[in-house]
Amino acid sequence: MTSLEGIETEETVTCLHMTFYHPCQEKKMMFRCLNFCKREQVRADEMAKFGRDSNVCHYNLMDTRVSRIQFSLQFYRKLNSSEFCFEIKNMSKKTKLIVDQTELGYLNKIDLPWKCIICFGDYQILAEVQEGESVDYFETHLHLAEVPILQERCLPSPQPVPETGISYSLFPSEGKSPIEVDENE
Amino acid sequence: MTSLEGIETEETVTCLHMTFYHPCQEKKMMFRCLNFCKREQVRADEMAKFGRDSNVCHYNLMDTRVSRIQFSLQFYRKLNSSEFCFEIKNMSKKTKLIVDQTELGYLNKIDLPWKCIICFGDYQILAEVQEGESVDYFETHLHLAEVPILQERCLPSPQPVPETGISYSLFPSEGKSPIEVDENE
Repeated sequence: MTSLEGIETEETVTCLHMTFYHPCQEKKMMFRCLNFCKREQVRADEMAKFGRDSNVCHYNLMDTRVSRIQFSLQFYRKLNSSEFCFEIKNMSKKTKLIVDQTELGYLNKIDLPWKCIICFGDYQILAEVQEGESVDYFETHLHLAEVPILQERCLPSPQPVPETGISYSLFPSEGKSPIEVDENE
Repeated sequence: MTSLEGIETEETVTCLHMTFYHPCQEKKMMFRCLNFCKREQVRADEMAKFGRDSNVCHYNLMDTRVSRIQFSLQFYRKLNSSEFCFEIKNMSKKTKLIVDQTELGYLNKIDLPWKCIICFGDYQILAEVQEGESVDYFETHLHLAEVPILQERCLPSPQPVPETGISYSLFPSEGKSPIEVDENE
């Protein structure tokens, strides 16, 4: 029997790749409810919510320092354009959400750049959008980073910091990136 | 016993007044699940969804021509500002959503003007925002219009149309407006 189930139309699907890093992730506690193995479909009319409350957030971070809903992502179409875009909104009253250089307070939101670094607390997420055509749904693909995504440029460094700390060039194709590790490793 | 329950903090709450009109509303079918009697609280981190699917939409329009989710409203705070704002998003693949002069296709969204007319199909909604301070929730207050909200300016009119058809000056205070009628009338 040929497995044709799961195949829908021939159109491509927008995929949001998100590579997570946390300094304490060796214990894998905070990420243990995230699915790093496979892409997940999200209906275009639903918000993708990340946070501690699994009743509300599909993307559940198991960490008491994380807010009930930390942030949400919505998929939308720009006015007078066929372009799709994601918008990120800080849903945490306690923690700022930093998207590249922009600091978002509670209920602030901005368009997610096609490639950006999202930070809150000790969390670092590299977000990269892979364009697609489907208007019905988008996909998320979560990855885990072994090394910090964000280089701490503000700290005084007596010696030049090697470039290996920066993992800012992922997904040239669908292949695996050097920093991507399996959840079960 | 003095009823103090329900009283929260002293802060004011942003209230979105929405006055609904549909040419067939005498039968009251499409609006029979809307609560025109009292204000309703919506958590600031929730979307207010309007549509046919009562499993998804709190504001349920009982009409087979209405989409599962027709449109949604989100409450947010403008970046580098303390100002709150609503954003409206068309969630219908079949029907355009018109906000004043702006036509929104599926998944298009715009900031809701403080006072505007929202149209889709035969529905007309006058939306008016009453500013408040609370960051935790906002309120909706639904009203029913007896006469059309939108004057059909495009139709040729052999005689001047009296101004009474336009109900574009509501809520000078919390009092009832002339066109507001009770759901049970």
